Amino acid sequence: MKIKVGIIGATGYAGAELVRILLTHPQAEIAAISSVSFEGKKLSEVYPSYKTLCDMECKTQDEVVEKSDVIFAALPHGLSQELAAQCDKAGKAFIDLGADFRLENEDDYKEWYNGEFLDKELHQRAVYGLPELFRDNIKGKKVIANPGCYTTGAPLALAPAVKSGLVKTEGIIVDSKSGVTGAGRKPSQSNHYPELNEGFHAYKVASHRHTPEIEQTLSKLSGKKVTITFVPHLLPVNRGILSTCYARLNDGVTKEQIRTEYEKFYKDEFFIRLLPDGQNTDIHNIKYSNFCDISLHIDTRTNTLVAISAIDNMVKGAAGQAIQNMNIIFGLDETTGLVIVPPAF
Amino acid sequence: MKIKVGIIGATGYAGAELVRILLTHPQAEIAAISSVSFEGKKLSEVYPSYKTLCDMECKTQDEVVEKSDVIFAALPHGLSQELAAQCDKAGKAFIDLGADFRLENEDDYKEWYNGEFLDKELHQRAVYGLPELFRDNIKGKKVIANPGCYTTGAPLALAPAVKSGLVKTEGIIVDSKSGVTGAGRKPSQSNHYPELNEGFHAYKVASHRHTPEIEQTLSKLSGKKVTITFVPHLLPVNRGILSTCYARLNDGVTKEQIRTEYEKFYKDEFFIRLLPDGQNTDIHNIKYSNFCDISLHIDTRTNTLVAISAIDNMVKGAAGQAIQNMNIIFGLDETTGLVIVPPAF
Amino acid sequence: MKIKVGIIGATGYAGAELVRILLTHPQAEIAAISSVSFEGKKLSEVYPSYKTLCDMECKTQDEVVEKSDVIFAALPHGLSQELAAQCDKAGKAFIDLGADFRLENEDDYKEWYNGEFLDKELHQRAVYGLPELFRDNIKGKKVIANPGCYTTGAPLALAPAVKSGLVKTEGIIVDSKSGVTGAGRKPSQSNHYPELNEGFHAYKVASHRHTPEIEQTLSKLSGKKVTITFVPHLLPVNRGILSTCYARLNDGVTKEQIRTEYEKFYKDEFFIRLLPDGQNTDIHNIKYSNFCDISLHIDTRTNTLVAISAIDNMVKGAAGQAIQNMNIIFGLDETTGLVIVPPAF
Amino acid sequence: MKIKVGIIGATGYAGAELVRILLTHPQAEIAAISSVSFEGKKLSEVYPSYKTLCDMECKTQDEVVEKSDVIFAALPHGLSQELAAQCDKAGKAFIDLGADFRLENEDDYKEWYNGEFLDKELHQRAVYGLPELFRDNIKGKKVIANPGCYTTGAPLALAPAVKSGLVKTEGIIVDSKSGVTGAGRKPSQSNHYPELNEGFHAYKVASHRHTPEIEQTLSKLSGKKVTITFVPHLLPVNRGILSTCYARLNDGVTKEQIRTEYEKFYKDEFFIRLLPDGQNTDIHNIKYSNFCDISLHIDTRTNTLVAISAIDNMVKGAAGQAIQNMNIIFGLDETTGLVIVPPAF
Repeated sequence: MKIKVGIIGATGYAGAELVRILLTHPQAEIAAISSVSFEGKKLSEVYPSYKTLCDMECKTQDEVVEKSDVIFAALPHGLSQELAAQCDKAGKAFIDLGADFRLENEDDYKEWYNGEFLDKELHQRAVYGLPELFRDNIKGKKVIANPGCYTTGAPLALAPAVKSGLVKTEGIIVDSKSGVTGAGRKPSQSNHYPELNEGFHAYKVASHRHTPEIEQTLSKLSGKKVTITFVPHLLPVNRGILSTCYARLNDGVTKEQIRTEYEKFYKDEFFIRLLPDGQNTDIHNIKYSNFCDISLHIDTRTNTLVAISAIDNMVKGAAGQAIQNMNIIFGLDETTGLVIVPPAF
Repeated sequence: MKIKVGIIGATGYAGAELVRILLTHPQAEIAAISSVSFEGKKLSEVYPSYKTLCDMECKTQDEVVEKSDVIFAALPHGLSQELAAQCDKAGKAFIDLGADFRLENEDDYKEWYNGEFLDKELHQRAVYGLPELFRDNIKGKKVIANPGCYTTGAPLALAPAVKSGLVKTEGIIVDSKSGVTGAGRKPSQSNHYPELNEGFHAYKVASHRHTPEIEQTLSKLSGKKVTITFVPHLLPVNRGILSTCYARLNDGVTKEQIRTEYEKFYKDEFFIRLLPDGQNTDIHNIKYSNFCDISLHIDTRTNTLVAISAIDNMVKGAAGQAIQNMNIIFGLDETTGLVIVPPAF
Repeated sequence: MKIKVGIIGATGYAGAELVRILLTHPQAEIAAISSVSFEGKKLSEVYPSYKTLCDMECKTQDEVVEKSDVIFAALPHGLSQELAAQCDKAGKAFIDLGADFRLENEDDYKEWYNGEFLDKELHQRAVYGLPELFRDNIKGKKVIANPGCYTTGAPLALAPAVKSGLVKTEGIIVDSKSGVTGAGRKPSQSNHYPELNEGFHAYKVASHRHTPEIEQTLSKLSGKKVTITFVPHLLPVNRGILSTCYARLNDGVTKEQIRTEYEKFYKDEFFIRLLPDGQNTDIHNIKYSNFCDISLHIDTRTNTLVAISAIDNMVKGAAGQAIQNMNIIFGLDETTGLVIVPPAF
Repeated sequence: MKIKVGIIGATGYAGAELVRILLTHPQAEIAAISSVSFEGKKLSEVYPSYKTLCDMECKTQDEVVEKSDVIFAALPHGLSQELAAQCDKAGKAFIDLGADFRLENEDDYKEWYNGEFLDKELHQRAVYGLPELFRDNIKGKKVIANPGCYTTGAPLALAPAVKSGLVKTEGIIVDSKSGVTGAGRKPSQSNHYPELNEGFHAYKVASHRHTPEIEQTLSKLSGKKVTITFVPHLLPVNRGILSTCYARLNDGVTKEQIRTEYEKFYKDEFFIRLLPDGQNTDIHNIKYSNFCDISLHIDTRTNTLVAISAIDNMVKGAAGQAIQNMNIIFGLDETTGLVIVPPAF
């Protein structure tokens, strides 16, 4: 029998992407979807590309919770905590694509999100769902904080180097470039076609909310507090995040050591593709898929590791990773429904 | 046991797209691929997006024919006839994505392609593979001429109106706009990024080789010789063809008659999505899928039907339709492996 | 002494484009600008590209009228009539980039815009400002209806053929494709980057308000009532309109006659560039400039003229043409300030 | 009398851009142009956007040198040294848009370009033409090495901080993103529209030839040898380079000190626009113009200056700066012909 899946916030971009992938998942079926803005409307009225494939009507949150074994929440930040408690009480698994459960330290949450933990016990049971780094913690859990988009690609690029101690943890710089879907479905001046097309800019320089989340992951890996400089940019493309990550090598560390460490670290990971030397990571090659491509470059003149990762912000950076987490907690093969071939063009 | 599929010309765009779709086809497996330009190379070296998913090496044509039950040929025009004969002799099914078998009249082939029919008997056994219009002819055949891209979308937009006699067959105009992948993988000045980006132009105005092929299909449907004006344009997007087709209504024909005719004609067709009145066909909604969306508009001031279709030129206009043809000739459900959800963005 | 120019609605796209061009006009200077939404703000706060070049503050309409010799109004339709009367009373020239004065027949205005002529006498004194076709009418006038974007490119493509009677005036089809700036500065779902990028669709099929305006121009040229089928499409580019226009040749008309007629008709027109046979009009080649490129193609199989024009919708289709009209009514050389080189890329 | 300008390599992108700007330069006129690939052709045949504005024919190099007071060379690297000598002998000014004269240290030239200085004396007389930093050196010179594109934007972003000693010169990182025109007019697989569109990648990571040139400039400013990590990326846009530059603040340096230093440094520079706090530099705002926009951001958590600059790679990064240099050496106002309004969209 298939897993019954509910999607709350199905008409947002992350919700719509969950639908796209789940429609062909062999072990799961969409039981119900909800949307505050489009209650009573068919999903295919909002996204005509889904016509005949998902003509389900948007229901209320309560109906979704009732009909589902697992609930994905793709809600604006701050709206997930109560929902999580409701699902928890009903014995349903809950996978949160928002930020409410991502930061373990409540002070960080207060500082960056201006919020608080409504139910501290629930927060303690929640687990951060970045499978390639924390898979063992995820198994058996029922409340999953699905990582953000920037916070998936950058840590995956740096993890083997940071964990192994081959690089200095001071002075790490993450220069990320994201496609526009990261800003969501709501039209705004900054996403208006003529103003973004043929443009490119940084935003929230050294002040983006994903900063403490990346630091939390790197700190866990390194065993000491890591502080980074993080600068996101907006690319005039629909999908994809490229993160160019800079870390100083510790004395005497060689290119070969770095590569060996990465190969060992990721050798069993289906979704991580470590590129051969000389090939450049490109968001072109992972679009629509759950892959994270990584290339390694050593600047021998300045003794710097440049590790570059590419993910699809809507898949490995949101919906795909959420389904990967679902597969883990339901005991399925982690790749089930996620072997999506990135189009060659 | 799965169908063994061979792809000749796998490193061209149509070949690469066949690979993308076949990798998840439940009843077929890629047995071998070939490429003249990249013999001995892995496909994933040419298209890094396929890394770990298709690391097969490009072999010779002969190896492909030998190992396969069905051979897809994605070759430049003119190179398929001998290969078709070779496959035929070896008892293999042959699906040609090139133009060699599309035109039934050798004079047309001479005029538009400057070629001739090497084996007239083989040409007579070949069938034009546009399933929604000629499904019954395709069943049981082994040599399939897969239609071109423009020649799929435009006829599907016009077929019900032309076949039913609701429109005049004189004066039909097809104004098509295609994404850049239609021009193939080879770089040229006209596909050079800075010269095509933010640009738009018509090309081969009233002289494109797809003209006689569209006319052949419309003539078959109407029972009399149809001549059209066909103007293709190049869109600065990767994929998709929108065809805006104009035909004069016969006297007294109403909007309702037109819609009723289309609904009846396409009611059992999974891949045809007739849009409700008021909704505009957009290539955005069919990308990466085998769908053909159609919207109908009546200009009552001039008594004109404007029928607009959108297909993905690489899927319904090439690789997807070829696989749909394979499904038919191997007795599979026509949608097998082709229920691809078009991404919402 | 320079002409004192006022711009009302300066923060809309047409207004901003007027600023861009006027800033380097040798005989005009911007005296004042206004904007309802941004009153009190600097224009360069709205458009940072103008920083240091136009840091003028947005004032009220009245201040603009008072300080200016000529007022350009780039307002939503319906808001220009009273302003025109105010300028007229004050003895100022008035150039309207909106639609209020474009249609000469009040019934048409009622039908398509649901409005009425507030001051019929003023409407009679207003003149339609398409210089290449109606230059003599414009000289000496003070109320100018600047044509719309589609209504500039399509008539220019067809004018010589229609006026000379070489084509039939029944059954003319105009298939236009416009860049996104045509829809203005206001964000909406349909102009949201991820939904428009890589997409393409028709809209307002056979029901766009520019239809009667194109017909009015063609009717004047031909001397009889012309009705057309007009289908606009939205291109994923910032600027440019390509209009592919179809007209049936009258019996015996040759390709050479057509070309000769066009060459004669446009021989003294700086802004019209008639392309040599075999070259295709591309919006790439006219961007940011006041040029209208035209290419001519004859479909001898169906006896059809395909005339294709390209203009920049914001320049020859709006601000540039408005300045061209200003040059005429102030007795300047028509090209003053408008010799803008279209970038090669 | 106007300056007679010659352009060698006029059909490349930098050459074409020189033409675009010079066509409206009030004190200069194009005397002759050359192109090896298109000798005997009109420039407007290669770039149809220039039709009627520049229908000049491409001549030989010798003819260009003969007819001109100043010669701009937009040639592949390595071809300028002999030409420079020829111009020098003929007493003509020479402005090289290639790299032959940019590096002052011949060892660097050998290491990065695998070339040598043919005439050491000439190299000593050549001057590096980045006016905002080295204006006084340029006056009165006749051989100008026009900086490369990356090597203009990054140093301008860092110059005030480096020169004033407010930042550490070790560990500087320059993460640049360039539009596609930077790679020139020649089609290649990597610039083929479908493979670059919707993609994004780094290239020549920590190994790009512009590295020593940026270091040379920063070293001159700081008075000691500066080594940087430089990573260029390719943006799917036609024009523009955004450089995100990271430098560690020296102890105790404040945000206010940084801003004060930049304001002082650039207060008389027309082409430098220092953005107010809180506004992000965008390539959108400088396209087609000679401006360099700069925004300053301080990461107080890691004590890092993030200085971001945007230039049009073809203007301030090539043709515009070359003309700025011409204006200097001919004693004109530096902005002559270069007050180009960047379009708002």
